[in-house]
Amino acid sequence: MSSVPKRQKLDAAGDGNTSAGPNEEESDALEQIDACQNEIDALNEKASEEILKVEQKYNKLRKPCYEKRSELVKRIPNFWVTSFINHPQVSGILDEEEEECLHALNKLEVEEFEDIKSGYRINFHFDENPYFENKILTKEFHLNSAASENGDWPASTSTPIEWKEGKNLLKQLLTKPYTNKKKRNSDYKTFFDWFSDNADPVNDEIAELIKDDLWPNPLQYYLVPDIEVEPEDDDEIDDNEEEAFDDDDGEEEGDEDLEDEGW
Amino acid sequence: MSSVPKRQKLDAAGDGNTSAGPNEEESDALEQIDACQNEIDALNEKASEEILKVEQKYNKLRKPCYEKRSELVKRIPNFWVTSFINHPQVSGILDEEEEECLHALNKLEVEEFEDIKSGYRINFHFDENPYFENKILTKEFHLNSAASENGDWPASTSTPIEWKEGKNLLKQLLTKPYTNKKKRNSDYKTFFDWFSDNADPVNDEIAELIKDDLWPNPLQYYLVPDIEVEPEDDDEIDDNEEEAFDDDDGEEEGDEDLEDEGW
Repeated sequence: MSSVPKRQKLDAAGDGNTSAGPNEEESDALEQIDACQNEIDALNEKASEEILKVEQKYNKLRKPCYEKRSELVKRIPNFWVTSFINHPQVSGILDEEEEECLHALNKLEVEEFEDIKSGYRINFHFDENPYFENKILTKEFHLNSAASENGDWPASTSTPIEWKEGKNLLKQLLTKPYTNKKKRNSDYKTFFDWFSDNADPVNDEIAELIKDDLWPNPLQYYLVPDIEVEPEDDDEIDDNEEEAFDDDDGEEEGDEDLEDEGW
Repeated sequence: MSSVPKRQKLDAAGDGNTSAGPNEEESDALEQIDACQNEIDALNEKASEEILKVEQKYNKLRKPCYEKRSELVKRIPNFWVTSFINHPQVSGILDEEEEECLHALNKLEVEEFEDIKSGYRINFHFDENPYFENKILTKEFHLNSAASENGDWPASTSTPIEWKEGKNLLKQLLTKPYTNKKKRNSDYKTFFDWFSDNADPVNDEIAELIKDDLWPNPLQYYLVPDIEVEPEDDDEIDDNEEEAFDDDDGEEEGDEDLEDEGW
């Protein structure tokens, strides 16, 4: 852009320039400042591109680790449902029967789209279970234009759940009182409500917690110590292990308190 | 870390593992998951380091642009004070006599520390002025350990202001009513209050606005159009210029409204 800006709001100098616009000397300087800004903007854009490339590279490098972890997780019964239940916020949307159902969740996957900023998908892989026919339930977020060829963004989609006869938890939840004892999440009533609701794809708190907190390190939630056991009494745990595994102790205890109070 | 985690909070499987700890097969899997997590953590750290390097590279590349801009800005009287006054939030801490004083502000500099995340400093360069002796007032933020050899973080420091006789604006402000017509900032009374106050260095809103908003692009604030002039009446401005320069119109008008109402 090479046009000369004509106005400035305040005549801070008191030299009467407000209505007449800046003088020639100032116009020239402003034009050059504008050129500087364009250079700065271009550098910012290049920096963003390079950072994106680094993130893409490390997404690729992390992938085999995540895949290996997924295989290992399958050897631990109820790894994911336990991690969900122990997560201070995610636990808040788990209805009792949903917890039952999530025992069949054998694999969780978070995939960022190639250009990262445009969105991501979460794949929930299920064993054969009494509740629905699907093997995989996917919730997908298109947050920026680059990802959506059809221009439909921001938007989220989720796999339609093929409930088995009489097992539609969403319908059941409508007719029975909310049975989760824990702190109720203000935005979503229950897990499958959250999964199926695509009304507001931006700032989906639960999805972001799964992507940015549970997925990068579920072990910290899976391994939350049993609050009933006094740490001093547990000779098997030394201090280093405590530190390494239980870095979210405080938050978890807070959640436990809510549970104890009958929330 | 190679120790086997001994506990999990919930006996989700119902197989009595809670008190006894996981069985051997699960312990082995958990240990391997933990190893995976360590690999993932190490990759995350390497990614952060590479991103830091990109940011450092572009900080260096941007530097000459910013320096050139600083020289150009000196040719425009009251560039910085005008930008401050036009900024919707920063304007809120400018007392009338401080505005007067800031007419002497001829150069603003924001310098991120070499490792970026550890902190930054803001240098305010002043012409000879009736208020204080200092040529440069610096406010510096140490936000992470890496920056502070003495371990004193988070912390901020600011140059002691050498007020001229009878010109101590901080003292004067204590004895006269607050004269800023605009929206009052809830955290800081006035600019020099903000500058001198180092009680809470974390989440300093004004400092962050200067660093992340005013410094990267002051022109957008300097050039805010005079709200008194109806755009339709101003034949000199074509639509493209409006768009290029005035992308914060809405906010500014909101602020103007407050001013008109005598805030």
